[in-house]
Amino acid sequence: MSRSALITGATGFIGGELAKRLAASGWHVHLLVRNSSDQAKLPSDTGVSIHTTDETTERVMLAVGEAKPDVVFHLASLFLAGHRADQIGSLIQSNILFATQLAEACVAHRVRRFVNTGTSWQHFGSKGKPVNLYAATKQAFEDILLYYHDACDLSVISLDLYDTYGPTDQRRKLLRILMDAVRSGDPLGMSPGEQLLDLAHVDDVLDAYVIAADRLLASEAPLFERYLLSHERLTLQQLIAEMSTALGRDVPVRLGALPYRPREVMVPIEATSRDRLPGWTPRRTIGATIPEMMDQ
Amino acid sequence: MSRSALITGATGFIGGELAKRLAASGWHVHLLVRNSSDQAKLPSDTGVSIHTTDETTERVMLAVGEAKPDVVFHLASLFLAGHRADQIGSLIQSNILFATQLAEACVAHRVRRFVNTGTSWQHFGSKGKPVNLYAATKQAFEDILLYYHDACDLSVISLDLYDTYGPTDQRRKLLRILMDAVRSGDPLGMSPGEQLLDLAHVDDVLDAYVIAADRLLASEAPLFERYLLSHERLTLQQLIAEMSTALGRDVPVRLGALPYRPREVMVPIEATSRDRLPGWTPRRTIGATIPEMMDQ
Repeated sequence: MSRSALITGATGFIGGELAKRLAASGWHVHLLVRNSSDQAKLPSDTGVSIHTTDETTERVMLAVGEAKPDVVFHLASLFLAGHRADQIGSLIQSNILFATQLAEACVAHRVRRFVNTGTSWQHFGSKGKPVNLYAATKQAFEDILLYYHDACDLSVISLDLYDTYGPTDQRRKLLRILMDAVRSGDPLGMSPGEQLLDLAHVDDVLDAYVIAADRLLASEAPLFERYLLSHERLTLQQLIAEMSTALGRDVPVRLGALPYRPREVMVPIEATSRDRLPGWTPRRTIGATIPEMMDQ
Repeated sequence: MSRSALITGATGFIGGELAKRLAASGWHVHLLVRNSSDQAKLPSDTGVSIHTTDETTERVMLAVGEAKPDVVFHLASLFLAGHRADQIGSLIQSNILFATQLAEACVAHRVRRFVNTGTSWQHFGSKGKPVNLYAATKQAFEDILLYYHDACDLSVISLDLYDTYGPTDQRRKLLRILMDAVRSGDPLGMSPGEQLLDLAHVDDVLDAYVIAADRLLASEAPLFERYLLSHERLTLQQLIAEMSTALGRDVPVRLGALPYRPREVMVPIEATSRDRLPGWTPRRTIGATIPEMMDQ
């Protein structure tokens, strides 16, 4: 039986890969894209339906009504590690207002299943304590989701992502920056490198989204669950050593050249057995992926 | 020593009364008013300074920078018992975006003390489970406040209000509607009336704001506290009987003519001893206030 999905955030790395994965496994995939997004970043040749929306609730309602998906996968967000005062409006617009419009539209159109995307940064030492304003807006939206769950029977699973990577990941994040240093040979100034990273391969992360959707589809009663997609934990120093081994080359870094950031996460929140998505067994490792990533 | 306060929401009942109370007891009072607000509703003749702002962070920053208050009292909010889809933008704008801009402005200008206003409706049966979308936006803002507290040392006390009343309260809420029925003699169709109400007189509520401010001023370390301003609990049926006794007249109601609302709060969350603001001892009763209210 063919399922239909509505995905937000498909111009991003994980969202785009999820669209491809679901389309390839027979889902009918709808993408909800804000008209300010760069549609050139959408996955191509996958037979997906594209719905554009502006900042009004009306347009989001219209798109959800057209798509009427079995499951909504909400991955759109504005990520800012730090924020300037003039970015508060955009953060709240993207991470709270748009998300709320989406939840409202689901309820209005009897779309009952919602996979939400959170971040490990919502849990700075303890659950629900945000690292930064970005994480605070994600946490804030979960209070709003709780209303839609409790009052309107929306069935919700939130997946809190840690660091993600994959062969086609071109984001200017740590791994790409390190690989560029390997290529150029220019030494990279870094913090002392004792912070623990928690990494998951995009294919493992996509598995989690599919498992979460299946879990929502299998449950008669509306769920309200949260899972932490914690997988491979190693320090930045260990990552650099792994990269060096995997590539058979030196990674030119100067550890300690920079201080840690304010509110640097030294130990990402640990997932207890209750935090683990049942049936999710991530298998890929960073060591095995680095050579493939380096080739892209 | 004279203190200065910045109050939002002074066009509302509690905010306006708080401005008068603080001004009368020697505080220098600044009001932050959105230019869309009806300034005719501001308390007059109290020697307060008025700062107007639009929806931009910049203007909120400017106002807080001009006022540089010792304590911010945040009472502004958009209240909607139920919402329509086209009101989501306004709810999030008023209850999350504006509030976040205010917190950001405080931190930017080293204003360290913030009294926030919540609602008992954030706790539908259990803490943090919102009755409606209005309450969800209030709860959502507290996640954001936690960021400003934890990352930027903002010292915060949230006061969660139940039902409030006072002699000069002209809001079209239950008490006024009942009194109008007494005056007109026209029978009022109501629910069966077994729901418990939790009422506090405005003067008692103002006491709580002053105590909260003193508590913030007395603490070296940044606080993050929440208190429930629960006081007099009686059912709607009992309230009607009290009103009848206090006025010596029948209150013409038809109990059971209407059903309970969806998500009617039958028992407002109970305040445990830990939820009670230390030093707050509310004294006024609804029975003693009704005759005075009827005269207004």
